[in-house]
Amino acid sequence: MKIAATKDNRALVIVADRAYDVTGALPLPPARHGGPWLPLFEEEMIDSFLDSLQLDQFEQVDLASTPLAAPIARPGKIIAAPVNYIDHKIEMSEQKTIAEYGVFLKANTSVIGEGDTVEIPYHDKRTDQEGELAVVIGRGGRHISREDALDHVFGYTASLDMTVRSTEDRSTRKSYDTFTPIGPWIVRTDELPDAGNLALQSHVDGELRQDTNTSELIFDVPQLIAYASSVMTLCPGDVIVTGTPAGVGPIKDGSPVSVTIEGIGTLSVVASASNAIAYADRPGAQVLIETTK
Amino acid sequence: MKIAATKDNRALVIVADRAYDVTGALPLPPARHGGPWLPLFEEEMIDSFLDSLQLDQFEQVDLASTPLAAPIARPGKIIAAPVNYIDHKIEMSEQKTIAEYGVFLKANTSVIGEGDTVEIPYHDKRTDQEGELAVVIGRGGRHISREDALDHVFGYTASLDMTVRSTEDRSTRKSYDTFTPIGPWIVRTDELPDAGNLALQSHVDGELRQDTNTSELIFDVPQLIAYASSVMTLCPGDVIVTGTPAGVGPIKDGSPVSVTIEGIGTLSVVASASNAIAYADRPGAQVLIETTK
Repeated sequence: MKIAATKDNRALVIVADRAYDVTGALPLPPARHGGPWLPLFEEEMIDSFLDSLQLDQFEQVDLASTPLAAPIARPGKIIAAPVNYIDHKIEMSEQKTIAEYGVFLKANTSVIGEGDTVEIPYHDKRTDQEGELAVVIGRGGRHISREDALDHVFGYTASLDMTVRSTEDRSTRKSYDTFTPIGPWIVRTDELPDAGNLALQSHVDGELRQDTNTSELIFDVPQLIAYASSVMTLCPGDVIVTGTPAGVGPIKDGSPVSVTIEGIGTLSVVASASNAIAYADRPGAQVLIETTK
Repeated sequence: MKIAATKDNRALVIVADRAYDVTGALPLPPARHGGPWLPLFEEEMIDSFLDSLQLDQFEQVDLASTPLAAPIARPGKIIAAPVNYIDHKIEMSEQKTIAEYGVFLKANTSVIGEGDTVEIPYHDKRTDQEGELAVVIGRGGRHISREDALDHVFGYTASLDMTVRSTEDRSTRKSYDTFTPIGPWIVRTDELPDAGNLALQSHVDGELRQDTNTSELIFDVPQLIAYASSVMTLCPGDVIVTGTPAGVGPIKDGSPVSVTIEGIGTLSVVASASNAIAYADRPGAQVLIETTK
């Protein structure tokens, strides 16, 4: 089973390529900014709701002609994994991996969905694509063991961790509005029980940039959940983006950018530099000159 | 006017040292995890609600005998300012300031309130206090100018940005559960229009550790709002912690920790190492040995 959301805030359930509009049965109204599914995660009703559905009672919709939105538009937290593939460590000349860096956070206001536009912030600083497997938490908790970790997963989706290459903290470089495309849907664990051995490719401008398998993750999904929950309480609806392999590189105005994950599908967005400014024109740039020159 | 929340999820308004329980008049139920005030911020009703109150119609409560909770228990975002005082840059041997680091994010699950307990995670890694002025956003927006910035502020509160000194990303080192005490209340801008010149002191174990004035901030409050909103959309109820001056240092089991800000008051917590573990026993520590030795 997959769950998706539409641009007009409708809730879809997809089974065997048939999509059903279940909006009328939702027990809670859509969140103001989070979409139709987020309240069911937050109130810990998502699994019981989905398990109770008699799908043949709902109208089918044509996915090909239905514009999708992010399946969760504003997660409580977006937890991200730096340097979690060895080949990416090498390409970035990183001295350390996630085992020493821990995790970082992305702003929940950075989420967009399938077909949306990534806004490049600066025309004179690189903005790179980073294709990643994303984990959606179904059951919260703290100090979750590796052994119990997969019981806390609702499902998986594809994501792009868009990144500016500059001097700022990771949270800044990766939190610009539109910098966390996720989707096109969430594949629940009944359909995809284990994400530990999935092919993952990213394309930019039609060229293959990244090509890996999630079996190459340094911290695999259970380890990521165990580690992150040793730091902070995980909540239903939180999203963990698991890190990117080698092959990150710049996107430019008009670039189509996509990530394809085996068992999930393809998430596609397009880049725009229409609102890009010069890096030196960002607010506070003049304070740099005053204090550190 | 000040707003506060109680441990039993009641909403208090404080004027001239008289506290009124306005819970019965709230137009929305308390958030599941965010406390009584968060929904009014999220639905952009906070100012109209407060301005409509006839306080003499509400019961007064005795603040001294009423246990307070964090005024906003789970903000949408907690945006934080690294290296935003020159004397802290020097003590940390930092080469850069906020002008090059930008901002970072803290997990919204790390918030606690007045009188609560900060849990020290590791008995063999320093956990430090960092006393900070915190800004609560009242009106959201993106690309907010310095000139307009203060129109987006609801009010100010005191905060402690608790920090582990280790190799992890700032988001990890500062996001352990209990690592963002805020309170004891939020002072609205009608009572405190400008936070640009406020004395700030932190005490640990009864000793003065930090002693500064917010006029020493490298990015002042308007600059922080302009910068942060150039990266990400600010939302009502978001909290910006503005950075810490020199004088950070370790806390230990049983340490009382407090921060006092002129015009706001004193936020006090106590530290506990009851659940501390060895750093080498954290989940994933063994992966470090396998991949980077």
